[in-house]
Amino acid sequence: MDLAPGHGGNGSSLPVERRLTGRPASPGLAAGPVFVDGPEIPAAAAPIGGDAEALRRAIGAAAAELAALAAGLGGEEADILGFQIAMLEDGALSEGAFDAISAGMPADHAWRSALDAEILDYEASEDPTFRARGADFADMRDRVLAHLAGTAGRRNVPAGSIYVAEDIAPSLFLSVDWSGGGIALAAGSPFSHVAMLARSRGVPMVTGLGRIDAAAAAIVDGAAGEVTLDPGAGSLAALAEGLAASRRAKAGEDALIRRPALLQDGTRIEVLLNVGRPEDLEGLDPGVCDGIGLVRTEFLFRPGHPLPGEDEQLAAYSRIAAWAEGRPVTIRTVDVGGDKPVEGLTAEGETNPFLGLRGLRLSLSRPEAFRVQLRALARAGAEHDIRVMLPMVTVPAEFDQAAALLDEEVAALARLGLPRRRPPLGIMVEVPAAALGAARFGADFYSIGSNDLTQYTMAAARDSAAVAGLNDTGDPAVLELMARTVAAGRTRHVPVSICGDAAADTGLLPQLLGIGLRCLSVAPMAVGRVKAAIAGLAHV
Amino acid sequence: MDLAPGHGGNGSSLPVERRLTGRPASPGLAAGPVFVDGPEIPAAAAPIGGDAEALRRAIGAAAAELAALAAGLGGEEADILGFQIAMLEDGALSEGAFDAISAGMPADHAWRSALDAEILDYEASEDPTFRARGADFADMRDRVLAHLAGTAGRRNVPAGSIYVAEDIAPSLFLSVDWSGGGIALAAGSPFSHVAMLARSRGVPMVTGLGRIDAAAAAIVDGAAGEVTLDPGAGSLAALAEGLAASRRAKAGEDALIRRPALLQDGTRIEVLLNVGRPEDLEGLDPGVCDGIGLVRTEFLFRPGHPLPGEDEQLAAYSRIAAWAEGRPVTIRTVDVGGDKPVEGLTAEGETNPFLGLRGLRLSLSRPEAFRVQLRALARAGAEHDIRVMLPMVTVPAEFDQAAALLDEEVAALARLGLPRRRPPLGIMVEVPAAALGAARFGADFYSIGSNDLTQYTMAAARDSAAVAGLNDTGDPAVLELMARTVAAGRTRHVPVSICGDAAADTGLLPQLLGIGLRCLSVAPMAVGRVKAAIAGLAHV
Repeated sequence: MDLAPGHGGNGSSLPVERRLTGRPASPGLAAGPVFVDGPEIPAAAAPIGGDAEALRRAIGAAAAELAALAAGLGGEEADILGFQIAMLEDGALSEGAFDAISAGMPADHAWRSALDAEILDYEASEDPTFRARGADFADMRDRVLAHLAGTAGRRNVPAGSIYVAEDIAPSLFLSVDWSGGGIALAAGSPFSHVAMLARSRGVPMVTGLGRIDAAAAAIVDGAAGEVTLDPGAGSLAALAEGLAASRRAKAGEDALIRRPALLQDGTRIEVLLNVGRPEDLEGLDPGVCDGIGLVRTEFLFRPGHPLPGEDEQLAAYSRIAAWAEGRPVTIRTVDVGGDKPVEGLTAEGETNPFLGLRGLRLSLSRPEAFRVQLRALARAGAEHDIRVMLPMVTVPAEFDQAAALLDEEVAALARLGLPRRRPPLGIMVEVPAAALGAARFGADFYSIGSNDLTQYTMAAARDSAAVAGLNDTGDPAVLELMARTVAAGRTRHVPVSICGDAAADTGLLPQLLGIGLRCLSVAPMAVGRVKAAIAGLAHV
Repeated sequence: MDLAPGHGGNGSSLPVERRLTGRPASPGLAAGPVFVDGPEIPAAAAPIGGDAEALRRAIGAAAAELAALAAGLGGEEADILGFQIAMLEDGALSEGAFDAISAGMPADHAWRSALDAEILDYEASEDPTFRARGADFADMRDRVLAHLAGTAGRRNVPAGSIYVAEDIAPSLFLSVDWSGGGIALAAGSPFSHVAMLARSRGVPMVTGLGRIDAAAAAIVDGAAGEVTLDPGAGSLAALAEGLAASRRAKAGEDALIRRPALLQDGTRIEVLLNVGRPEDLEGLDPGVCDGIGLVRTEFLFRPGHPLPGEDEQLAAYSRIAAWAEGRPVTIRTVDVGGDKPVEGLTAEGETNPFLGLRGLRLSLSRPEAFRVQLRALARAGAEHDIRVMLPMVTVPAEFDQAAALLDEEVAALARLGLPRRRPPLGIMVEVPAAALGAARFGADFYSIGSNDLTQYTMAAARDSAAVAGLNDTGDPAVLELMARTVAAGRTRHVPVSICGDAAADTGLLPQLLGIGLRCLSVAPMAVGRVKAAIAGLAHV
């Protein structure tokens, strides 16, 4: 732990401003008093009913505490805690600890050893995403240890603090009121669960700052990856200006968000939503968008669960489509494989999963599972304006095979007399071959998946820090492939949209509009920002 | 073992012809008497000097036998045996067996258990290349067991046989005279070491045939992946015709091989060589080629060895260039990373190594090692027509960085007064972005790497059986990217060649010439075949 103790007050001499640079993990500006958190070293407590019983109770209490915390959350946040709860309840994790207790080791030592071994395994990985999972196990380790020691639930981060520590546990993050606050971490990773959570809640966060000296107050600039300790007058004035600018921007976005997106020359740009799960739409007014451009259906295909049935899928698709109140809803068939494995569906042990059996390739290799999804989509289409989109399409023959399966299932539904409609069938354009050959597909629409298209065109994995500099959607080659797709849409008189991260990258917006794109599909929280950026452009 | 016993003779009734289909592993036609090989079950022998001493002797004898076999071989073949020798001499492999012997287990049982555990690990892999390595360990297991039992060296496969077995060990393959013979395997894999050896020696081989019934004679059609047991008159006539056709083709190739390659309209096509190591050129007449289009320098960067010094590299490059007798020699800077790891150089644990830190990316991230190679190349260039080629180039800035390093090293050599020449600097075009942006590079030449260009354009790994159907160099998208590269070469008045496997794919030749390629770089053994195919084309 390379962290100086914090006293939260000024010493006798005036503190000098210091600026630290780390890795941006969640954008935004925050300033406030510093709250320094160190590792808790729980005092040994006399176990009640023996060490094994004490550990069993502590694990149970930790899981119950997490379940209570998860009950107030939705979607991804609940999922992260759900993962910890499942791991705590899974005997495999604690088995080693109970064995060690049987051999005479005290409960706290046994649990710490078992979890530390697990954490070491994760941290030894070169893959930053995987390595960052170690933080979840550290979180579980410390929560159970706190229950063993009887010190659980004592930590209380005041609202509006700048939280300073080596790292922060997801469960702690979720229990804090972050309004006005921010996070500055000596270690940590932008790929961690906690960084994902900070981004989705808009809490500014910087990781990898190294040694953080004691300070009374700090400014966190999450976008720049900078932390200013004991800021001076100049920094505070710049902060005030930055905050005012972002408030003005937010007010501008709020004024625009329910209006159609128009360039200053009156050109209409469609703004659609990317949706990962039905909960993403809770509390959201459908008037903010022109429809849904991408529903990811992976939420239905959960690791460790049976594949979803036709009725379960129909209900989920209908619920999302009903939210849209008649606006078009584009649903992508399941896009697993590669980095998104599902038991009973995906191939295991591929050396290069991004170049393997994923997306439509996997669906075509498991036609029985694919037919169930196509039937559910055709049935949902009876009542709603549903369009079906195929991921990772490479050659026209794959599209034709999928179209034939869809036609067969629509015919089967007709024979059963069930309500159904043959939905328009389009393709994601995310493989270079599909972009170059776009005009040769019989697709009813195209949607550019800029993340994958970039990683294949540049041969640079999107989750590899070592080649992050090459993973550039603004490269002329990527823009040319997107322009080819737009041209194919014009020639074939079918719509073209973009639904990758680039659609919400306002820095790229002039280029995207410049190559002829007029339809962007973005995450719900990006709608205001994207509409404001569109309104700021004179013309294309 | 799903293999019926073979008697090598006819029964009382006339045998009926049966045709089996497996996986093509090495092309070519062979016919002959069947030699059925089963697993040897060594009889228990009384160990001399205790079990541990017996195992030590058996391992030593097996390693010595392999070393003797390797002495008569070169290049890749010696390497495969070298791997087995190294593994046998490495204490880690036998440690478990010696432990078991200490605990009272007999030597043969202990060795078999230790090796079987190793083999199971390999065979559990989903990666076919990795899985096929299990066969090397089975080979080591059986050779040591045979020495333990005193039955080593007894197997004798007569020349001209069709070898029928579950699988075949690399060391056995290398000890047999295969002239006129072939191999039919119930199991096995086209990705195994033995399949590589069979292809490089031209021994017809089919794998994955399943149950192989007893038969007196058989025909192996390696290209079709077919085996005909007890062939009838019709099959024998077809075989004779096939053999005559391939003899005619071979004679045609021999007549052409030392002549320049010309289409029937007189268009000259340059044919260059791909060289993996200096030994590839032994006994080869430089008159068969127009130069060397690709020297892979990975042979200098061996796992487990220190990085090669400047003088070692200079000697190797000069030796290869001297062979070419003044013809141009294009040397590629080290292309490791991805599937070709080297300790002390490559990154470990990438989840998608093909999309990671490899080729020039790695060289630029390790400039000190890269400078050594550039100096050696500039020094070799003082005496020979050497051109330097950069692998996995993605954006022009990378090329510019490499060019600046080369200029700096040439200047440093000049200051030292050492003989040197600044060689022309070109790029491999194997990333889609480089093909699309080819005209934006300052390269002195382009060489299309069709294997990687195909896998990225199609997003289909070249070592994945599950997406092998999509890994198609003939796809219009791949051909378009090659054509773009040719066009960039014309615009910029610099040469363009192709050095991937597609260059030797005579089925693709009309398309390659059609997009304007006039320079092919192929493996030494493909030169005759490619020149004959060129001579067979009227015009482009």
